[in-house]
Formats: sequence, structure tokens, C-alpha cells
Amino acid sequence: MNNNLLKGKRGIVFGALNDKSIAWKVAEKAVEQGAIITLSNTPVAVRMGETNALGEKLNAKIIPADATSVEDLERVFTESMDVLGGKIDFVLHSIGMSMNMRHKKDYDDLNYEFYDRTLNISAISFHKMMQVAKKMDAVSEGGSLLALTHIAAQRTFTGYNDMADAKALLESITRSFGYVYGRDKGVRVNTVSQSPTLTTAGQGIGGMNAFLDFAEKMSPLGNADSDECADYCIMMFSDYTRKVTMQNLFHDGGFSNMGLTQAIVEDYIEKK
Amino acid sequence: MNNNLLKGKRGIVFGALNDKSIAWKVAEKAVEQGAIITLSNTPVAVRMGETNALGEKLNAKIIPADATSVEDLERVFTESMDVLGGKIDFVLHSIGMSMNMRHKKDYDDLNYEFYDRTLNISAISFHKMMQVAKKMDAVSEGGSLLALTHIAAQRTFTGYNDMADAKALLESITRSFGYVYGRDKGVRVNTVSQSPTLTTAGQGIGGMNAFLDFAEKMSPLGNADSDECADYCIMMFSDYTRKVTMQNLFHDGGFSNMGLTQAIVEDYIEKK
Amino acid sequence: MNNNLLKGKRGIVFGALNDKSIAWKVAEKAVEQGAIITLSNTPVAVRMGETNALGEKLNAKIIPADATSVEDLERVFTESMDVLGGKIDFVLHSIGMSMNMRHKKDYDDLNYEFYDRTLNISAISFHKMMQVAKKMDAVSEGGSLLALTHIAAQRTFTGYNDMADAKALLESITRSFGYVYGRDKGVRVNTVSQSPTLTTAGQGIGGMNAFLDFAEKMSPLGNADSDECADYCIMMFSDYTRKVTMQNLFHDGGFSNMGLTQAIVEDYIEKK
Amino acid sequence: MNNNLLKGKRGIVFGALNDKSIAWKVAEKAVEQGAIITLSNTPVAVRMGETNALGEKLNAKIIPADATSVEDLERVFTESMDVLGGKIDFVLHSIGMSMNMRHKKDYDDLNYEFYDRTLNISAISFHKMMQVAKKMDAVSEGGSLLALTHIAAQRTFTGYNDMADAKALLESITRSFGYVYGRDKGVRVNTVSQSPTLTTAGQGIGGMNAFLDFAEKMSPLGNADSDECADYCIMMFSDYTRKVTMQNLFHDGGFSNMGLTQAIVEDYIEKK
Repeated sequence: MNNNLLKGKRGIVFGALNDKSIAWKVAEKAVEQGAIITLSNTPVAVRMGETNALGEKLNAKIIPADATSVEDLERVFTESMDVLGGKIDFVLHSIGMSMNMRHKKDYDDLNYEFYDRTLNISAISFHKMMQVAKKMDAVSEGGSLLALTHIAAQRTFTGYNDMADAKALLESITRSFGYVYGRDKGVRVNTVSQSPTLTTAGQGIGGMNAFLDFAEKMSPLGNADSDECADYCIMMFSDYTRKVTMQNLFHDGGFSNMGLTQAIVEDYIEKK
Repeated sequence: MNNNLLKGKRGIVFGALNDKSIAWKVAEKAVEQGAIITLSNTPVAVRMGETNALGEKLNAKIIPADATSVEDLERVFTESMDVLGGKIDFVLHSIGMSMNMRHKKDYDDLNYEFYDRTLNISAISFHKMMQVAKKMDAVSEGGSLLALTHIAAQRTFTGYNDMADAKALLESITRSFGYVYGRDKGVRVNTVSQSPTLTTAGQGIGGMNAFLDFAEKMSPLGNADSDECADYCIMMFSDYTRKVTMQNLFHDGGFSNMGLTQAIVEDYIEKK
Repeated sequence: MNNNLLKGKRGIVFGALNDKSIAWKVAEKAVEQGAIITLSNTPVAVRMGETNALGEKLNAKIIPADATSVEDLERVFTESMDVLGGKIDFVLHSIGMSMNMRHKKDYDDLNYEFYDRTLNISAISFHKMMQVAKKMDAVSEGGSLLALTHIAAQRTFTGYNDMADAKALLESITRSFGYVYGRDKGVRVNTVSQSPTLTTAGQGIGGMNAFLDFAEKMSPLGNADSDECADYCIMMFSDYTRKVTMQNLFHDGGFSNMGLTQAIVEDYIEKK
Repeated sequence: MNNNLLKGKRGIVFGALNDKSIAWKVAEKAVEQGAIITLSNTPVAVRMGETNALGEKLNAKIIPADATSVEDLERVFTESMDVLGGKIDFVLHSIGMSMNMRHKKDYDDLNYEFYDRTLNISAISFHKMMQVAKKMDAVSEGGSLLALTHIAAQRTFTGYNDMADAKALLESITRSFGYVYGRDKGVRVNTVSQSPTLTTAGQGIGGMNAFLDFAEKMSPLGNADSDECADYCIMMFSDYTRKVTMQNLFHDGGFSNMGLTQAIVEDYIEKK
């Protein structure tokens, strides 16, 4: 599916780790649709992962950066504008990490240094990205910034732990900065709240398989996959959505507005 | 802006009255993007309005119908499939009318026969459309049904009167039927919640100018216009949004998530 | 538990059918807490049910009325003010009925006459009550009006059918009229969104047992019962909540903000 | 108004600075309603403020503590249980501070160390309180924990700055911990989202007067004051609300569900 939706646009994609990543798919599809892009990830991820292969395939410069570092982010925007030849039209923030989850700390036994890191890496990094970009005037008017989030920001899912709080913070930052960036520069800022997805990051979530199965049965159209999510992101970067801002957009096969499906009744409750 | 987003798709557009109508713009843009369509409106509107001119311009058959009549709706779907040569891929519901507003009945002095008509014309007609279409199996898998709504479904706006209740009902029908239609046929159903727009219908709303001005100042990107709304509808009909269903999508320059802008403070509160 | 919370207050309770009804418990507790009340129900319900016994026990006049009839509602308020000796301080609306559910019509095969009746009985009756009361100036300043609702107004539950739409309409009416009644008369209007409850009305809902079990496991505090709901209503009628209006208040053990509990994972998903 | 609603209950009130504080009113009313309490505030606030006078008046021990310190919080719960003679039944969290606001840093020019402090003081302190209390098993079954918040968590208000993000995080923590605490110990956790209030903290918010005026005109019942807020908190601590948890409860005269009032139209838009 290619409709030249991003022809002539310049973008930065943060968080493409491997071909299971949503960010990876977004990068591929953005280029297919006519964009030129740069890729950014942590130095470790760039060294260990497959980001380099993606960069070569897409002819995209890779700019390693710690997304919690203002200096690193300034470098990403400076180099991206330099290599892409102008202001940035779209940015994808697909970054999240919880040391509490990695260390299997329950939500009522959090390590608070880990908690601060969860918030800094998964949410505040988006604020820093925008503050840096706005100060540099690095995003073109009508530009579109997106971050990936999850419905755990609204409702509590066992095992999702402190990442739920990080996503709630991320969505608040989206609204707060969305106002300022829209008002001053005509830039729109939104989040896409995606179905649970079996990415490398998703694998860290406790009980991910149970959750995937539950969500599949609770979604009239089934879970959205990473390919479909990338299509939706393309649409949000395109000029067809120029008046959408400060929104949290559910891309989840209907999950968010379901209370109880027939499939849950039949497959779980009656079979029990 | 043309990206062939609806190439090969068949659609029905309800409610194109004149060139101020959002439905009119959607019809034009759908055809530009490669779709073939039919148009439907009330017999009176077809006789009195400019729908015929649009039909000729777009080479679209006009099928007069009362959207509260199951029989009429059956005819619309039968004739549309016949003339378009197959199942329907997208439908726009842009229908709303309040006799209470026309007769300037306040919300605490409603005429209940008018109220029933408001609900029947503005909301239940969407249920009838879907019940008819589903029974006839008239919508293709992956098809996309959209209705236009307004944030008065969530928050109370002086002068919006019983139309607020109709929009809340419309959005509930969207969720309720969206589950069934998604589950059984893979059809998605959503509403687009649009900025106040100076259509012929919009002119009937009490204090519309005050509201337009307020909304403009309360929206970081300003009010979305009917052209932009039509672009967004095209995206929602396209294959880029196939896992979005049962959602109410704000297309409003950020209005829905604003509490207070600097422009309101400066232009209203401090100037008072 | 008795704290004289409604001492000196006058109320009307609509919908007390038998001792399983939430309205029945509210009537009992309101009188315990010092209120004097009248009871209203349909003529059939009064004849067939146990409302008379409740009336005797509580020394409360029973005023049969069809809540969809403006004339009947006028009579209820006139007689209530007469017998209670002044303006009304609180009203409970606990009324709902779906002929589509009774006739096991699926949501994609609704009978539209039944649907109109569902909306009229379950939602529009609340508007009529308020329009009648406001025109008669029958509610005292600071008065509190409550209607019982369900989370199906926000999310779709299989089997809840057209009652979901009725509840969405009821909640919209609450907001719309709440604005007008608050502005003009200082009267507050709210809904309580209660856990599924095994009342006579609840028994009509398809798959009620499955839903009760699911909700119990999905609620950190378990389902709220009708006694607890009545306690909450008392609080909403009291002077401790005088600035709460136009709200939908979840009384559900936490259900509404849960996405997935450990109990669901263990009892359903892993046991399957 | 005294109904012995908290007879025999033990509570801790965090954040009573002076007689303008909502926490101050809550402390007074809690004692009036039969509770015994302790008070906690920062060491600086205790030294400089009027907390000591309140403690004497209410016969309440004052326990200075930095609410971001786990050790300090452990001490507060230990000493409170000791002095009050048993487990705690209710806690009020009324704590918030933004160095960015104090230093007039705009939201697109945040100091990130200040931002971390805003989140730690205003939101994460509530998590720490609960984690400490749960580990110590310091809250009785059926206990009620409340934090004060603001609608800026949902919608963006110019000048509310990074406190909006802190409130969003606070509400997420309320949900996340509310699940765990409800499930394991039957403790309920909620936030009260209060009208703008002219407390000492409120005075720090940019354009507070404009906002107070706007909110007053946008609320059908007018802004709720701190006395009314305290009444509502008492109800949330009482046994009348035992199945309410994980909720954000608007106490705001209807503001949260208004889009546009007649008062705004007449006083601002038409007068401009």
C-alpha cells in the first residue's frame, strides 16, 4: 500500500530496535511513502541491535542518542536537519523502559530510582524532544509529532506496573506541550494508543501472553498489529490530519470501548 | 491533494445539502480520491437544494430517502449496490435536525414530539442504516462507516439544546453497533467530532457566532473547517485506519482537550 | 448506620418494586436518615408488586404514575409537595425497561417501536421529571436529583442491548438539564453508575450471571451491592455534596478503571 | 453541620499550611465529625506556618516530614498509629509544589531538575505514602485514602504548567495503587478534583484570578470553596462510600462537564 502520503517530508524515528518494533515498520513505511528520515536509538541499542541494517536499507543516517539527554537530542535535531536538508515534518517517539519490570519489582514494592528512570526514559524524553525542537525552531509549520502509548494510562492492567504511570505522564505531556506547540508554531502533537504488541519491549511485560489473548478476545476486530499501527502513524504524519492535536488515538480493534464481548463469555467464563 | 486513497471503493454519502455541507466536501473528495459514490438526502432537500448539481458534477446517482424509514434505507442500499456494481465500502452519515431548535424551544421547555424526532432523525437513523445494511450484507469486509458528531455529546454548550442528547445517543449507537458489526463482518464504525462549522445546519444553533469565536480562541490550531474535516473522513474511509473502530475522533484543532488558552484570557477575560 | 443525614428533607423515590430494588433500599435508608418521602411506580407495578407494603412500613404515600406521562409526573410532584408539606429536596430515578430485551431481539435486529419505548421509559422520563419539576418550581434550592445508570453507557457489554443507548441518553440528559437546573435554581443533577446488581430488572439482561461473575473478578473491591449503592445515594442527597453536579459517579468497586485483574488472569485465562 | 460521620476513626492529614488550606478545613471537620488525627507537613512549613496552632486546637500531634522521603513517611505512620492507638482509617494528601512555576519558567522552557521535583513532591509522594503504609499494614480494612487534584490533569490550562503533568501522574498512581490496595487490603484510593481555590498554593499559579473568574462563570453552581471541598472529603472518608475506589471525583460546581455557559457568552464574548 503506497500512496505517496509523505512525499517530500522529513522525519525522525526514535526507537527502531529490530524488525518487530513498531518504529521499524514506521521507518520502512515512511520511506516507502516518500519521506526521507533519520533514525535514533540509544548507543547500546545501535551497537547491539539491527538498527544499522535498517539504516542501510532505508538510506537513513543513524544518530545514537540518549533520549533523556538534552544535549544528545539537540544533536539529533541538528544533524537531522543537516542531513535531510531542512526542518523536520514528523517525529515518532517509540521509547519506553522500566527497570522495575525488568527486576520484577511489584507495583507496591517499587524501587524509586528505577521509577524515576521509567518516567524519564518513557515520558519526559518526549518533553525534552519537543522543548529542544521548539527552541531550535526545528519543526516545520503543520509538522506532526507522535508518541506510542497504551490504554494502561487510563485503566489498570495487572503486570503493567509503573509503565502505566509513565504512559499517563506521556499523554499529559502530549496535551500540555501540544497546546504550546500548536499555538506558537502550528505543530500538532498526539499519541497513538496501540493494542498490546509482541515487540521486544512488550515481551518484558508480566503476563504478556495472557494479556494478548484477553485483548484479542475483547476486541471486535482483534488486536491491531505493528504493520497496521505503522499505517495509522503514516496517516497521522500526512496532511490529511492537520487539525488533529492533543489527542490520544486508540488503534486497538475496538478494545478501549468494549466492556464485555461474547468471545470472553464463551471462551473464558462459560468454559471455566 | 490527491493520493488515490479510495481507488476502487464504493460509497454512499448522506446529507450533502449545498457546498457549505461537510458531506458535500466529502463527496467531492471521495470521488477525487478514486471512489464511486451515490448521494442520498431527504426528498425535500433534493427538490429544493443543490444536490442534483453535485450529482451531475460527480456522476453520482441521487437517491432521495427519509433516513428514518427502514424501507427507504433498504432502497438506498439496494440501488447503490446496483449502480455501483458491488458491496459498499464506506458510508457517511451527516444528518441532524432539531425542531425544538427551529422553534426556539429552550431545553427546559422541550416539545417531546419534537424531541423524539430529533433523536430519530439525528441518531436512530444511523442505527437503522446499519441494521438494514447488515441484514442485506451490503457492506464489504473492512468497510468503514462514519457519522459526524459534536463535543456537545460530552460537555454542555448553551444553545445546543436537544441536539446534545442526540449526539450522545449517536455516539452510543456507534459503539454498540460497532461491536456487533466488527465482530460479525469486520466493519468499522466511528464518529468524527468536528469543530463548530458554519454549515446551513450549524446556522440553526443558538448563538452560533459566539460559539465559533469562543472555539476558535480555545483551539490551539484554530477551528477545523469543512475541507479539513473532509480530508480526515477520507483517511477514515481509507485502508490506513482498518483497526480503528467504536471511536469518537476529535477533529477540532485541539479544542476538546483545552481548559483555558492564553487567547481566551487576553481577548475575553482581561478585555472585559 | 444512621447519621441523620437527611433530617428534615423531603424526597420522591421512583422505581421501588420489591426488596431487591435499589430504589427500595434508598427509600428505607432515606427514611432512616430522617427524610419523609413519597413513592412512585407504574400502576401495574403498584398493583402487582410489594410497593404498598413498603409504603406502609415507611409511612410513605404511594403515587402511581407512568413516568413517560407529563400529566402523571405533574400529579406526582403536586401530591408529593402537598403530602410532604413543601418543596422536594431529593428525587431518585430508578426506572428502566427494554421490550427488545424482553423479546430477545438482538441489537442488530431491533424493533424500533420497542427502541423508542426503551428510550422514553429509561431516559426521557428523567427529562420530563425535571422539566415538570422546574416549571412547577417544585425542587428546593440545593436540591439533589439522582438517576441510576450503568457503565454500558461508556463501553459495550454483550447482551446489554438497547439499554446501553438509553443509559448514554440518560447521562446526556443529566448533563444538559444539570446545567440549566443548576444555573437557574441551584439544583444539582447526577447519575450513579452502579455495579451489575441482581434486581428484578437486572435479571432481564442476557447473560447476567456471566456478567456478575466477570465484574466481581474485575473489581478490586468486588461488586457493590444494592445496600451500598443506597448508602452512596444518601450521601449524594445530603448536604455534604452540594457542589457536585452533572457528574456520572461510578459506584462499582473499581471496575470502571480496571483493564485486567490478576483474578481474571488466574480464574479465566489460565484455567481455560 | 455535624453528623458524627467519622466517629472512632483515625486519620492523617498531610498539607495543612494555614486556614486557607483545604487540608486545614479537612482537619477541622474530621475532628468535628468524631475522628482523631495527626497532622504532617514539611519541617519548614511547620516552623514557619500556623500548623502548630491547628494542632493545639484539634489536639493533634504534628509530625514534620518530607513527603518524598520513605524514612520520614515510615515515621509518620509509626508515630500516628502509636499516638492514635491503632491502624489508620483515612489519609488526605494535599501536597503540591512546582519550582518551575515559582521561577516563572514557561512550559516550553522547563528546568528538568525542577520538573523532577514537581513530580516527586506532588505525585510520587502519594505512591511512597501508600507503599510505606501497605508494607507496614498501617491502614485498616475499608480505609479511605484521598489526594487533591485538578482538572488540568485532563485538559490544558494556560499557566498551570508542569503541575498539570504532576496531577495526571497523581491520578494514574491513584488508579494503579488503588487496584493493588483494594485487592490485597480492601483499602480504597481516590482523588477529588476541586475547583480552583485561592489557597496559598493556588496563588502561585499564573493568572489565577483570571482562571477563578472564568471557572466561576463556567460552573452552573459556581466554584466550590474549600469548606465545601472539606465536606466532600469527609463523605469520602465515611462508611457511605465504601465501594468507591480508583476514581477521580469532580467537586467543581459542574465545571468539568460544561462546554460553554450563557454567563461566558454574556459576560465575555458579547461584552468584548
